[in-house]
Amino acid sequence: MRVLLKLATLFVIVVAALMWNTVVLAEGPDPNGADTFAANPNAGLNMAWTLIAGFLVFFMQAGFALLGAGLVRAKNTVNYLTKSFLDFCMTGLSFWAFGYAFMFGGSKLFSGLDIGNAFIGFSGFFLASDAYDVNTVMLWFFQMVFAATAATIVAGMVAERMKITAYLAYSFLIGAIIYPIYGHWVWGGGWLGTLPFGSGARDFAGSGVVHTIGGTVGLMGAWLVGPRIGKFKRDGTPNQIKGHNLVYIVSGTFILFFGWFGFNPGSTLAATDLRISVIAVNTFLAGATGAVVAIYLSMMRTGKADIIAACNGSLAGLVAITAPCAYVAPWAAVVIGAIAPLVQQAAQAFVERRLKIDDVVGAFGVHAGAGLWGLLAIGIFADGTYGDVAGLIKGEGGQIVAQLISMVTVLAWGLGTGFILFGILKKTMGLRAPREEELHGLDIPEHGIEAYPLPEKEPAGA
Amino acid sequence: MRVLLKLATLFVIVVAALMWNTVVLAEGPDPNGADTFAANPNAGLNMAWTLIAGFLVFFMQAGFALLGAGLVRAKNTVNYLTKSFLDFCMTGLSFWAFGYAFMFGGSKLFSGLDIGNAFIGFSGFFLASDAYDVNTVMLWFFQMVFAATAATIVAGMVAERMKITAYLAYSFLIGAIIYPIYGHWVWGGGWLGTLPFGSGARDFAGSGVVHTIGGTVGLMGAWLVGPRIGKFKRDGTPNQIKGHNLVYIVSGTFILFFGWFGFNPGSTLAATDLRISVIAVNTFLAGATGAVVAIYLSMMRTGKADIIAACNGSLAGLVAITAPCAYVAPWAAVVIGAIAPLVQQAAQAFVERRLKIDDVVGAFGVHAGAGLWGLLAIGIFADGTYGDVAGLIKGEGGQIVAQLISMVTVLAWGLGTGFILFGILKKTMGLRAPREEELHGLDIPEHGIEAYPLPEKEPAGA
Amino acid sequence: MRVLLKLATLFVIVVAALMWNTVVLAEGPDPNGADTFAANPNAGLNMAWTLIAGFLVFFMQAGFALLGAGLVRAKNTVNYLTKSFLDFCMTGLSFWAFGYAFMFGGSKLFSGLDIGNAFIGFSGFFLASDAYDVNTVMLWFFQMVFAATAATIVAGMVAERMKITAYLAYSFLIGAIIYPIYGHWVWGGGWLGTLPFGSGARDFAGSGVVHTIGGTVGLMGAWLVGPRIGKFKRDGTPNQIKGHNLVYIVSGTFILFFGWFGFNPGSTLAATDLRISVIAVNTFLAGATGAVVAIYLSMMRTGKADIIAACNGSLAGLVAITAPCAYVAPWAAVVIGAIAPLVQQAAQAFVERRLKIDDVVGAFGVHAGAGLWGLLAIGIFADGTYGDVAGLIKGEGGQIVAQLISMVTVLAWGLGTGFILFGILKKTMGLRAPREEELHGLDIPEHGIEAYPLPEKEPAGA
Repeated sequence: MRVLLKLATLFVIVVAALMWNTVVLAEGPDPNGADTFAANPNAGLNMAWTLIAGFLVFFMQAGFALLGAGLVRAKNTVNYLTKSFLDFCMTGLSFWAFGYAFMFGGSKLFSGLDIGNAFIGFSGFFLASDAYDVNTVMLWFFQMVFAATAATIVAGMVAERMKITAYLAYSFLIGAIIYPIYGHWVWGGGWLGTLPFGSGARDFAGSGVVHTIGGTVGLMGAWLVGPRIGKFKRDGTPNQIKGHNLVYIVSGTFILFFGWFGFNPGSTLAATDLRISVIAVNTFLAGATGAVVAIYLSMMRTGKADIIAACNGSLAGLVAITAPCAYVAPWAAVVIGAIAPLVQQAAQAFVERRLKIDDVVGAFGVHAGAGLWGLLAIGIFADGTYGDVAGLIKGEGGQIVAQLISMVTVLAWGLGTGFILFGILKKTMGLRAPREEELHGLDIPEHGIEAYPLPEKEPAGA
Repeated sequence: MRVLLKLATLFVIVVAALMWNTVVLAEGPDPNGADTFAANPNAGLNMAWTLIAGFLVFFMQAGFALLGAGLVRAKNTVNYLTKSFLDFCMTGLSFWAFGYAFMFGGSKLFSGLDIGNAFIGFSGFFLASDAYDVNTVMLWFFQMVFAATAATIVAGMVAERMKITAYLAYSFLIGAIIYPIYGHWVWGGGWLGTLPFGSGARDFAGSGVVHTIGGTVGLMGAWLVGPRIGKFKRDGTPNQIKGHNLVYIVSGTFILFFGWFGFNPGSTLAATDLRISVIAVNTFLAGATGAVVAIYLSMMRTGKADIIAACNGSLAGLVAITAPCAYVAPWAAVVIGAIAPLVQQAAQAFVERRLKIDDVVGAFGVHAGAGLWGLLAIGIFADGTYGDVAGLIKGEGGQIVAQLISMVTVLAWGLGTGFILFGILKKTMGLRAPREEELHGLDIPEHGIEAYPLPEKEPAGA
Repeated sequence: MRVLLKLATLFVIVVAALMWNTVVLAEGPDPNGADTFAANPNAGLNMAWTLIAGFLVFFMQAGFALLGAGLVRAKNTVNYLTKSFLDFCMTGLSFWAFGYAFMFGGSKLFSGLDIGNAFIGFSGFFLASDAYDVNTVMLWFFQMVFAATAATIVAGMVAERMKITAYLAYSFLIGAIIYPIYGHWVWGGGWLGTLPFGSGARDFAGSGVVHTIGGTVGLMGAWLVGPRIGKFKRDGTPNQIKGHNLVYIVSGTFILFFGWFGFNPGSTLAATDLRISVIAVNTFLAGATGAVVAIYLSMMRTGKADIIAACNGSLAGLVAITAPCAYVAPWAAVVIGAIAPLVQQAAQAFVERRLKIDDVVGAFGVHAGAGLWGLLAIGIFADGTYGDVAGLIKGEGGQIVAQLISMVTVLAWGLGTGFILFGILKKTMGLRAPREEELHGLDIPEHGIEAYPLPEKEPAGA
């Protein structure tokens, strides 16, 4: 807590100092967009498209909040909701101050993003000075909601036992450092996107950049904070701990699916790129197929139609299609979506049964497992109709090499930095709520209120 | 179950065979949209509009899920949610494989939709070959979310007693056959849209194609599966069986209302068609008026402000304006919306008290009753300002003839095919869950989990 | 009730009379938009942008419904939901019939809005005659959802004890009279927007027009209806009465945040105005900062991370940035958002502890407190990059004078008309539900159903 306050104070002082020197007086070449629009009459359409898509991605935060709220026990619901709400705020602010500059500095995509190298960028801090420009600001918005998505994936994995203070610190740091640096390598002009195999590593909308990063960092968090009391039996086999509200789970999944139509098609940053219709359809088909495969699998295995498996299968399909969505044909989206729940369930079982890590909502399987499958799928199914990316089905073997390199890299980066980040937090502020708090639920001790307060008797004076 | 698996296997084989021959190698004239955009600089705007509208329609699935979840009893909530989630997945896949080709084949609207006649289309299967084109794919997306809407209307009507396996089979078949064929008649170049009365049968956004089809097919499902245990007294008068969560009901209605702004204005498929503002406003006015009329009706009749009646009244107004939304003036939207809840309530009472069919959520009144009223309203209120469609208020009598023919047709087609479909399912896999399952609720026996699991004691080893 | 029915009948007769004379036969210059589009090829883009933004603002109604439903006790949830659902319907209809004409008549912005003066407008009633035009209708839609937002703010403030009939009457009248007249002064060509200081009073998206009006009118409602039984102890100090569902509160806040991306960027009414990216980013930054500041404040004060405070802090940041969103730089949005929860909490404490008014959901602090701060902030932080509006940081002192005048005016107008409106309703139909109804909850007596009905035993005949 005190560390955080000191950091916050320091942060405010730094911001203020930076501001008075450079921000109030400086602005980019086109802070109101008049020049940009005059130069490109399609700028309005593409900006509207990008922003609206970004709004939909933002709304996915509500989906994650509901999905996770349903999957945790009632006694920890307020804790989960608080994390889920605050993480996008923290990540948004750190991505504004630092992350965006680390990620897109040097990309030269828009004004104020000039300085950077193959490993990291160094301009665009605080959207100030040359970055106070309609295009630079637009790109920030779309990228920020992606960073916030990566951040909030972790909330469900460490739910029901991580302290809120540690989680807030984590949220700030993933948006400032971990997410942007890997993002720089793929999307910001860094070394992965420019690999000399195929078209370089491709990840259209972030199966790797967003989902695998979130899933791997969260795995380290879940490991270092330890499993919930009672998750594993003495012999190491897992107990199933049920959530408390299936309506929230399904509603959250619907909202996520809805938001994905911003996530994937919006990643063109342009509605003048008509491939958006194929991207939207691929997104739908993969998500729908994932759900159908998962529900029939569960019926075959247990005789029960497991709706939670269907939701996760659907999300796995969506995560898997996120990287290849622009590069493949609809039939391939169905195949990718059909395989996704298999990968997801295998990854989930591996984490729970082999690694004995307590990933409360099964996010590693959905986001990292299916995310890696999505990266690989580009190397197989890309059909050359878009962006000159072609995979094995077109007889091209170079792309899959680039994809494999990016898969190894994202795993190493996510697990490595996740370990360091949560390791430092564990040593300094501590990760774990006290045992009694966990047994009774974190809501009252950490937040002072339950998710479902019961009415009190009418107070005196009534 | 086994039948389904065999069907699924057969389906996969057919798909695979089709794919290896025609899909991997074949593509439409413009799979990435470069040519289309070069030919029409407004293509980006219109595609963005259509896709975003489609996203909103997709989100209506969440509205149906919440609305129905609130209207059923807690013990069947997981069952309802599973149906509501899986039906759009199943319908989406069957519409991809077959439905779209049956509906728009022969319409020649876009590449790959060439073959068909006045009764049915035969090209565009799997979005493959010539149909792998940005425009064809765009239209598919918008049409698919409509098909999925029709499908999910049924979930609420047969809730609380239909087996999940039968429901999944139904969902596949409505999207493959029932919905597309009637749709072909009205929107795909078929005989209803080209009737020699007025401008031919008109149904701008689907009061008939979507809502009346859903409501009539569902009525046959509800009839053939039989009423819930306890719905009707021995003397045949109905008992009121309350749902379990009013917050879900109202939230679901809000989401549906929101999604309707995609449903109706999006049906122009073009933002260059500025009538979209009138359509949006008509949509709002009819929905708002429906709610207001319903709430005052309930207050006059019972002294209580019945929020469920208001929600249904609002939805009835929205369904009713769906067909005429583009053809009428705002004042007419108010009139159409005011009459809609009267029609809806009369239809609902007729189903429950005369037909003694147990339509759990009252969807027949909302979707079929108000849907038919919407078809008729075009013949009365169309004012000639758009699409050259004019009704009685302009002294034109031809349009209402076309509308009446389409009303009779949609009733006959929906009830007829619904009867055949659910009749076959009843004879083969069976429609009804066992009596004990129904009494205790379907959630545990069919899905293995309740909607609101209670916390277990801390497991041994804690 | 009877008064309402008479009013309604009168209303219908007036409408009908007006209609048969002027509406059926008359239409504006361009009811289908063909001429408008021919004259301005960007009209489609800007209309799509405005409508989609309006859809998002409409969806905020669902956010208010959920937020308030969570903040009231379970026993009054149906009552709150009914108000929250019906108010936008009533306001929408009264804004259609009267409000829009009072607000934009004389603005000459579009066809049919010609007649009016600096105090009030007088044309555009019923969107009829010359106002039946695509542009006039588009503007109506966007403005109507704003009016409905102002209306629904009040629902939470008077919750748990105001009669539904009185509330419905209020909803009609705020949309017909109170909201539009102040709106006319600022946005409709009235005297505030044309003040000879700075650029005249500015309120880009309605911190004052929408939020402060809602908050001040609601304060009078909450005062005149009196506090809930048990809210204040005999010595006048307040009791805390908890809501009943934190998941609804957080979900509602997420939806509101999402909808705000329509509210603020949409207020350009044009996507060709590329400032929309800066507006979206400012909106996000202020909302995120408000939440972060509020959560750390609560942790410092009580050691608990108060999620309700964070939600309100976030909303306060969003309300505060609503007026200045287009005129300030991102860094200023952070500062405005950081200060907003301080103003909001001070205003809330003042209302509860000094005025001893029972504002159930704390809406006065959020909407009026932060709203006034937003109006002021333009005078400080506007940086001259947009719309030629510059404040103190650019060395300009004129703007803040105009802002201060508008702040005094909105307070006087909102409190004054709110007092008159609720005073009249109190004298005529009465505001307060009977004491026994309030003690047992309004849901059964006013609505005949609880929010969470329990299953009955299987009825006889099962």
